[in-house]
Parts: sequence; structure tokens; C-alpha cells
Amino acid sequence: MSQKQQLIEKVIEAWQALQQQAPLVQCITNSVANNYVANILLAAGASPAMIDNPFEAADFTKICAALSINIGTPTTEQTQAMLISAETAQQQQRPWVLDPVGYGSILKWRSETVDQLLKFQPTIIRGNASEISTLAGSQVQSKGVDSTLNSHDVYAQAKSLLQHTECVAISGESDYIISKQLDMVIKVNGGCHLQPKITATGCALGALTAAYHAVTNSTIAALAAHIHFAIAGKLAYEHAQTVGSFNVAFLDYIHMLDDNLIQQYVDIEIL
Amino acid sequence: MSQKQQLIEKVIEAWQALQQQAPLVQCITNSVANNYVANILLAAGASPAMIDNPFEAADFTKICAALSINIGTPTTEQTQAMLISAETAQQQQRPWVLDPVGYGSILKWRSETVDQLLKFQPTIIRGNASEISTLAGSQVQSKGVDSTLNSHDVYAQAKSLLQHTECVAISGESDYIISKQLDMVIKVNGGCHLQPKITATGCALGALTAAYHAVTNSTIAALAAHIHFAIAGKLAYEHAQTVGSFNVAFLDYIHMLDDNLIQQYVDIEIL
Amino acid sequence: MSQKQQLIEKVIEAWQALQQQAPLVQCITNSVANNYVANILLAAGASPAMIDNPFEAADFTKICAALSINIGTPTTEQTQAMLISAETAQQQQRPWVLDPVGYGSILKWRSETVDQLLKFQPTIIRGNASEISTLAGSQVQSKGVDSTLNSHDVYAQAKSLLQHTECVAISGESDYIISKQLDMVIKVNGGCHLQPKITATGCALGALTAAYHAVTNSTIAALAAHIHFAIAGKLAYEHAQTVGSFNVAFLDYIHMLDDNLIQQYVDIEIL
Repeated sequence: MSQKQQLIEKVIEAWQALQQQAPLVQCITNSVANNYVANILLAAGASPAMIDNPFEAADFTKICAALSINIGTPTTEQTQAMLISAETAQQQQRPWVLDPVGYGSILKWRSETVDQLLKFQPTIIRGNASEISTLAGSQVQSKGVDSTLNSHDVYAQAKSLLQHTECVAISGESDYIISKQLDMVIKVNGGCHLQPKITATGCALGALTAAYHAVTNSTIAALAAHIHFAIAGKLAYEHAQTVGSFNVAFLDYIHMLDDNLIQQYVDIEIL
Repeated sequence: MSQKQQLIEKVIEAWQALQQQAPLVQCITNSVANNYVANILLAAGASPAMIDNPFEAADFTKICAALSINIGTPTTEQTQAMLISAETAQQQQRPWVLDPVGYGSILKWRSETVDQLLKFQPTIIRGNASEISTLAGSQVQSKGVDSTLNSHDVYAQAKSLLQHTECVAISGESDYIISKQLDMVIKVNGGCHLQPKITATGCALGALTAAYHAVTNSTIAALAAHIHFAIAGKLAYEHAQTVGSFNVAFLDYIHMLDDNLIQQYVDIEIL
Repeated sequence: MSQKQQLIEKVIEAWQALQQQAPLVQCITNSVANNYVANILLAAGASPAMIDNPFEAADFTKICAALSINIGTPTTEQTQAMLISAETAQQQQRPWVLDPVGYGSILKWRSETVDQLLKFQPTIIRGNASEISTLAGSQVQSKGVDSTLNSHDVYAQAKSLLQHTECVAISGESDYIISKQLDMVIKVNGGCHLQPKITATGCALGALTAAYHAVTNSTIAALAAHIHFAIAGKLAYEHAQTVGSFNVAFLDYIHMLDDNLIQQYVDIEIL
């Protein structure tokens, strides 16, 4: 069996484990994304809980199976919760995913929070090309929270982030998974051009990565989540080509994914 | 006319009153649920307003027709608003519904708030089986905010909560309405297995219970809201069997419910 | 070319400019609306960013192309952000739109904030008839956040608000755009009766007005946004007559609008 087919087998096993275990995933996410993130995680098979206050954060992180932190619309209390939960996750060896939405020189406050969060060693960092590039040290000017860079142009540079984490995932027209463990970059093709037209798809992808990480290692978790989204996006677009209807169909296919659809539609390349 | 048919008549009258009065319902709910809750209440015929800050809470509770408090993702300011509005509701004899999301030993902060809120005598308490069982004194370990218990196994125990409230509603595969006034337990059948796959359906059910409570007594309000959801869920599932499409159809049927559909599809048992 | 046709030409140009520039729009909006607002703006062609904390507000307003402030569910931190961003917008001559949700005597705290925000001279004020009438000095009792008045009965009175702003937009069964620059009132027909059944449509209309204002003057921006909504609402209703399905179709048509659809379906009157 080829290395690629071995990865696909592990992705299918991760999907099966997600269905069987329905892991409890703590999501600290932004006010734009939280309903959508919860629905994506429920549809995918996980059990999300949006515990984002500093008074319950530590206790909850101790019992969750994985943690997702997304810095989209931070408040003071939420920022406190992020720091507490990230520290708790590191102490308790819970897998956790950091999504540094809008990281850069304009949004200094959140960027300082992200810098602090990095000290607690997220097991996976996930972002768009602008965010990952800036986090890796470039002086990029992103456009608000949307990327101005191509994921392909960023992945080599993103390897420097492996000092902070086991795995980096960059979303874009194609996605790139950079694995420290396997010393490998995997390209994930699929999805559709309407996905950036729906807010919080990136946020949901980060949370789904955390959900998979509750049942498998960082590389397979990132790969499985991105394949899950890529296939659901591709099939949804075959079903509906307008943005509102596509969004409904996308949730349908996030839920309907199974072993056969993964095997049939997965499109990855080892670089 | 049988006792059961009498209840159904009153539910139909409550639905009619909801359409005619479009009562103003103050909702203090969580950040995952608020858009969904507002859309469900608008579709059902009510007029929701999400006033959840402590600076306006008292004034607004005085003019609303009913209050819904859901403890899902509390902040400090929102918690203050909950306490102010609950106290105001009790003083002004406004009907109010408490939804103790995630009540239990892990989420201590919100559970303490719930304990304080109970002093203001919610007219209805609504929750899933784990929450209601824990609130009634059991040492249950729920899974985040999702239930690990069956509603059927909990309703006998839940009667102890009638010291705090007139009515307890437990949602699950079947729902149970426990009425102090009628000294009766009513089982509501219907709905579909996809509903727990959509986040905030329980939260919306609590808010709809408050909306009905603006136009009728606690028992009929809880019964009407649960029947409304059970029928809409059943009919939506006949129309759409995938989670995204089901969710759209569910909102359609929440809006399309009428006297005839209630009479035709209602499925309740007096226990 | 008639004055009306000249206006329509400018609306079409504004729509084209929105597609070409995809302007960065800072939205400080409420917790019910933010997901919906972001999706509407993305579908319409803009690039929304929900930066609503006081620590990043000033820096972000400096780089955005337009600002939308909606007072729906204010927190202390969000209120601070509103004041900072409004002041920054005025200083930097950024166009900004104020949506005074629920303005009136019951909701005093937000109403005081709105009074403070008016000092920073919003370029456009947008609201429903109750809000605009109260803001113009009437003692109206609105029902929560929903209007109890007809937009037609309010537009004459609303002219007094032109001391604070260049343009006032009143939404209702028909919408009214009151332009200081053109000394003109323009009536926009269209839409459908289901739109008030979907929460946050007014909020999204305010944000879309800001998005258009990033690429054109205040009168054409308000006109273009209201025409965009009116046509999308009309066409969506032809496609789907139930509230859940209508909402999906509405997002589809927000995205599918183009020159031809504007020319074919626009329905405005100069009063």
C-alpha cells in the first residue's frame, strides 16, 4: 500500500472513530461563527460545547477531549478563558487547535493574545495564508480577516512554525498540511469557490480539526478535517451552485460523508 | 370531550392567541442560539427581543409579556441581566422560563447562577434529561451540554422541582410535561432524530415555551410549545432527511403550523 | 435621461464598484445579527470584518473603507468600541452608517449611546419607522425592536434628522431614502412580507448600506442597498413562499443580483 493510501486509510479510521466516540470538543470561538461551528461539529459527529468564560474554562478543559481556540471577536472575558484553557490543555495533555484569525500588525490586541497562546504549544495551528504567513514572521498586510495571499506561496515559510506546534494547516484554494511528525507536506484538493463566500467556514474547519484531534494524532486530524471539508464542498457544489443553497447542501454533506465517499473523492498529494 | 381532547383544544387556542397577540418576549440566551431563537420565535408568531444587558434588563422586563432565560454561554454582564430580569419578572408577575443549560458539577459558575435564579420562582423550568435530573438533586455526569440520560427515566424524579416552579418540561426522544396545577404528567411524542443534530433547538424550545406562556397558563404553554416543535419536526423530516435541509424545512413548518395540523398530528398521552 | 433613470444608472455603477473593490467593511453589530450580516455582505460582494472590541477599534476603523454601527445587543466593551470607531471614522472621513435598534424611552442606555454617537455625524442613519420617528423627537412606543409605525407616515418628520447626517433611510413595506444632498425623498418598492419574519434583515440592510457607501456617496449608497434588498426579496419570494426556504433563496438572490436584474426589477419613485 502506498504512503498516500496509508494516509487515506488512517483518515477513514479517524472518521469512524469520530462517529463512534462523538468526542466532547470545547470551542472558544467568535460571535460570528459559534452557531455555524456548533452545527458543523454536530453534523460531523462530534459533541461541541462553547464554554468561553474564564470562570468555567479550566474545569471544562480538564474533561473535554479536545479544545479549539479561535480568536475572531475577542472580549476581555473570552481572552481570559482562552489563556486559561490553553494552559490547562497543555498541562493535561489535551490536544488543542489554535486559529489566529486576523493575526497581524493592525489587530495588535488579539495578536498579542496569540503570541501568549503560542507558549502553551497548540498541537495544531490552522489559518488562512495571510495569517499563517504573518505568524511565521512576514510583514503581510491582510484585508481584515480575509487572506490576500495564496496558500501555495506560504507553505514553505510556514515550516518555521513547527517550533510552536506539531502541525500547521493552511486553507485556501488547495489546503496544505505541514507535519512535523512525518516531516511531510500534504496538499488537499477539493472544495469550491463558494466556500469563502460563507462566513466562518475557516473557523468551523479549525474546530473540526480539533474534533478529529480528539480521536487521532495531529497530522491525521488536520488531514481528515480538511478532506472532510474538501469533499463536502465539492459534492455540495454539484448539488447547488448558489451561495444560500450551497450552504445548506454543505451541511448536508458534512453529515453524509462516509467511508465510501472519502475513498471515492479524496484528492491529496504528498509534496 | 376527553381530558386529552380538552388539553388539545386549549393548545389550539394558545396557538391562535400567539398569532393574534404576537407577544413581546424578552430572551436572554446564549451566543450560539440567539439568531436561531429569534428566527424560531418570529416564525411561530411571537415578537422576540434579545435584551441581555444589566443596564436595560429591569425596564425591559417590565414591558415584556414573558421572559426566557437560558444560561448557555454566560458572561458577567449577561449573568447580571439574568438576575435582574428574573427578580423583576417575579415582582411584576411576568411568566418566565428557566433553561439551565449544562447545569451540573463541572460548570459550577453557571450552576450557582441557576441556584440563585430558582429563588425568583420561574413559572416553568425546561431542560434536557441530564440537566433536569441534576437540578432535581442527582449526581449525573452530563456530556458537556448534551444529555446522557433518557427523558423517560427522569420525569418521576423531576417532580421534586415543583417546589420551585409550576411546571417542568423535559425534552428528549419523547418530551414530558409535569404540571403542578393539574397534578399530571403529559408525554409528547413526535419530532425526529435529527433535531439533536441541530444546535440550539432546545434553547429555541425554551424560548417558544416562554412565548406561549405570554398568552396562556404554564401547563398549556409548555404543552403547546412542545407540540409545536414535535409536529414541525415530524413534518420537516417527511420533507427533508438530511440535516441542513431538515433545518430549513423545520423553520418552514414552525411557521406553517395551524389548527388543522395540530389536530391532525398531535400525539400526547396523559400518564 | 430622466432623473430617475440617472439614479438607477448610478445604482448600477455602485453595484459594479462593490464587485470590483470588495471593500473592507467594519461591522459593530449585535449578537443576533453578526453571522447573518457577514453572510449578506459576503454574498453582496463586500469583505466584512466584525471588529467590535475597544482595543482594536481605532486602528481598524483607520484601515476600513466604511463602518457600520448597530446598537442591537450592546455590551460595555462593544459600546466603547462604537464610540471609538465612530469618532475615528469622523476624524478620518470614513463613511459610516448608524442603525439605532430599539431607540426609545424604554431602552435608555442604548439610547444615550446613540445620542453620543450622533455627535460623530454618521453619514447615513438607517432604521425602521419607530426608531427613526423616536430619534426625530416623537414620543413613540415601539414594540421591543420591531416597528409599530408605517414608514410612509414617518418620512416627512425624519427630515429633521438631516442636521445630524447626510441621508436617512427608513425601512418598511416601502422604504424611504431622504437625501440632504439632492434635497429629495426616494421611495423604494419591492421586497416581500416574509422579510420581517427573519431576524436581522434590518441589521444586514444597514451593513450593506455601509458597504455601498464605501464605493459611492451617501444617497446612492442608501438607494443601492435598499434596491438590492428589495429586488432580492421579491425574486426570492417568487422562488420560495415559506420562511425557512425564503431565507435561503434571499441569500441566493443577494449574491445573484446583477446589472440586468437591477434594470429589470428596480421600482423607485421620486417624491
